[in-house]
Amino acid sequence: MTHIAVIGGSDAGISAALRARELDPDVEVTVVVADAYPNYSICGIPYYFTGEVAPWQALAHRTHADLEATGMQLRLNTLATGIDVSGRRLAVRDGSGAESTIPYDELVVGTGALPSHAGITGLDALGPDDGVHVIHSMGDTFALDRHLTERNPGSAIIIGAGYVGLEMAEAFAARGMRVTQLQRGPEVLSTLDAELAGLVRRELEEHGVIVRTRTLVSRVEKTPTGLVVTGTRDGSPVSHEADLVLAVVGVRPNTSLLEAAGAMLGAGRAVAVDEQMRTGLPHVFAAGDGVVTHHRLLGTSYLPLGTTSHKQGRIAGENALGGTARFAGSVGTQVVKVFDLVAARTGLRDQDAALAGYAPATVQSTADDHKRYYPGAQPITFRVTGDTATGRLLGAQLVGRLGTETAKRVDTFATALHAGLTVAQVSDLDLSYTPPLGSPWDAVQIATQTWSRTHTLIGAPA
Amino acid sequence: MTHIAVIGGSDAGISAALRARELDPDVEVTVVVADAYPNYSICGIPYYFTGEVAPWQALAHRTHADLEATGMQLRLNTLATGIDVSGRRLAVRDGSGAESTIPYDELVVGTGALPSHAGITGLDALGPDDGVHVIHSMGDTFALDRHLTERNPGSAIIIGAGYVGLEMAEAFAARGMRVTQLQRGPEVLSTLDAELAGLVRRELEEHGVIVRTRTLVSRVEKTPTGLVVTGTRDGSPVSHEADLVLAVVGVRPNTSLLEAAGAMLGAGRAVAVDEQMRTGLPHVFAAGDGVVTHHRLLGTSYLPLGTTSHKQGRIAGENALGGTARFAGSVGTQVVKVFDLVAARTGLRDQDAALAGYAPATVQSTADDHKRYYPGAQPITFRVTGDTATGRLLGAQLVGRLGTETAKRVDTFATALHAGLTVAQVSDLDLSYTPPLGSPWDAVQIATQTWSRTHTLIGAPA
Repeated sequence: MTHIAVIGGSDAGISAALRARELDPDVEVTVVVADAYPNYSICGIPYYFTGEVAPWQALAHRTHADLEATGMQLRLNTLATGIDVSGRRLAVRDGSGAESTIPYDELVVGTGALPSHAGITGLDALGPDDGVHVIHSMGDTFALDRHLTERNPGSAIIIGAGYVGLEMAEAFAARGMRVTQLQRGPEVLSTLDAELAGLVRRELEEHGVIVRTRTLVSRVEKTPTGLVVTGTRDGSPVSHEADLVLAVVGVRPNTSLLEAAGAMLGAGRAVAVDEQMRTGLPHVFAAGDGVVTHHRLLGTSYLPLGTTSHKQGRIAGENALGGTARFAGSVGTQVVKVFDLVAARTGLRDQDAALAGYAPATVQSTADDHKRYYPGAQPITFRVTGDTATGRLLGAQLVGRLGTETAKRVDTFATALHAGLTVAQVSDLDLSYTPPLGSPWDAVQIATQTWSRTHTLIGAPA
Repeated sequence: MTHIAVIGGSDAGISAALRARELDPDVEVTVVVADAYPNYSICGIPYYFTGEVAPWQALAHRTHADLEATGMQLRLNTLATGIDVSGRRLAVRDGSGAESTIPYDELVVGTGALPSHAGITGLDALGPDDGVHVIHSMGDTFALDRHLTERNPGSAIIIGAGYVGLEMAEAFAARGMRVTQLQRGPEVLSTLDAELAGLVRRELEEHGVIVRTRTLVSRVEKTPTGLVVTGTRDGSPVSHEADLVLAVVGVRPNTSLLEAAGAMLGAGRAVAVDEQMRTGLPHVFAAGDGVVTHHRLLGTSYLPLGTTSHKQGRIAGENALGGTARFAGSVGTQVVKVFDLVAARTGLRDQDAALAGYAPATVQSTADDHKRYYPGAQPITFRVTGDTATGRLLGAQLVGRLGTETAKRVDTFATALHAGLTVAQVSDLDLSYTPPLGSPWDAVQIATQTWSRTHTLIGAPA
């Protein structure tokens, strides 16, 4: 009987295990999970802190019982410490400190990513007991929860203004805390062009979040009166004080186990895998936030996202059974809700596209989500990026209010990108229309038509 | 200077005129409009009757002044009575009865469709003054409005349960009227499979609409006490009485002008045009509800929809200037809001697909619009149709509650259909995810995965 060992109880690992058990009810699958919380929705943690999700157990995509009902074995609180590639054995240490080995036929590694410290002094020494938090695991969640409950902090500094940083700003604000958000770049949400990210910043500010951009944080210190975050803004020293500090300054791939086993690193210093999720080490697959991302427009990149981890894990699980499934590739689709705003992107922006050898141009436009005569119409702001040489669609960014179907409108662009359509072909799509929910030319097509008017030669052909 | 004459002030005609003026500010464009209401959103009329849109002038996509500002000439209340193809002259009769001719270089005909009477006795003889209405123009709208305002009818019978019929049921119910909806087929909304249309019927019934399916209406009569609609239900005679009757039993292409000029008819007895909107008559283009529809999966069909009319009109306008634009083809995307439910479809259903030579299978599934742990998650019910021989996506039907982004989720399928993707490729798409608005595998992909599990050979490949 084939035995597949899986390291990691998050999206990639569990997806691999589920897929293997789905395809072959006879395969034996052991999942080694570092903590006691397999298959939790890490993306959902901010909504536990807003109070919208309770109890925390609701964050499980599947319960422990659900997972065991699929026939997989879970080894909780167990750390994988080494891979004997030639002997096909995994060394592990359980919660009591006992060491053992797990023989395997095929191995899938989904060790994910680790919070980055971005070179900020103090982040490695200070921890939850000091009021300094990261938010990357259920353990981090419990620590932050304890802090909030027991010490009822009135103020927080969030270092970073990416997806999780913004969601946590909303969560802290929802709890009545005074929130200061420090961002290194010129705008929040550096994954969007500043023109759109500015809309997101305004939404934060309208909800009382103090946003400080161009702020390079260098140190976090604990003082008798609170936590002090120091750095520079536009070259001048700045200092902020609060009861709590949350550092969400990105992640780095957790590659130590595979590196020690001889795996190669690739883009973003993540583990190199091919589109079948093979590491190059015999019988060793890897998937998720620890590995490179095949991107349909960029080739190989590093873009850790839950959606990608699910897909990669599923492929690893199928191929560990001898399959030949291939990851079709990311197009970098992302969406975030920030208070009552939804910000989404897919594909490339000008600077990414130019680096990748395209001849991009980006055109901004605004269109109502539905016919203005029907109540509740709201504008969606678009930035469409296309290749001026070929007309190919390269990317789109959208910001609209909740209820404007902005999240699923970005999917139209994502689907078009996957299929390699041109900007003009998006204008040709047969998209749905009824006055309460759209327009005869959907907002998406107003945006692509605006691009085409700017970037193709238009004139009477006769 | 080139002179383009356009017949028709609705979607196709105005789109053609706008496009011509956009491409060549020197072209002279004359639009002959049968009534005084060019560029009105006929799809929006039901929302005037719900009270959500007011005044009725708000239904104009563009005002008269907006249209004239583009440089087009409007000849309102003017009926086109004949086309002299070889002499390139259009015969018209204005509101005073005066006949004249309009010379043209190129002609675009967008005469649309006419309400069908579906062979029901009495519909041709009875009219608004008798309390019997259709709803196809602003004139119809004013007549119905007058009836509602002056006579305050307490009850209505709607013959037909297609898009407009359902929207008008909502409108009459919103005004407190007792509504009886009579439908010939086994379920309302015959454009959806009965399994999903049944959800729509329940929504109508929950809002007090009396729905009677399998009801073949044969006659509408005016009696001293009200209007009586008679027919048969499952072979037995039935009779319904109400203060008002609205007949919305489909449309037929309005082809008389082009037929008289020698144009050929095609699918649905609509005017045959090629993908460039050429009628075959020299210098005569046609677009909109009066012409055949090029369909990416069916070849040539007849599927009158506002979205298609806009696209076809735009192409006719460009080609009338000597262009060579081609209509990329419909995939039959449609959506309707019925009270708090959204019903959408794109592509083909089993029976359409089988007739077109595919080997279709349809699989139904249900998936939440977003992660269940986040408040407000609602199921969307899907029916995905794929070709069992090739795996190609053939169609999708969706029903979900308002707020579930169902309308724009159908667009993901529509885009995939346009691009010719397989069902499995939809599962590969990089769709957006954040817990309040989606899932790591979007609901769309839960539906396509369910299809794939049913219709591909799954087993351990090793």
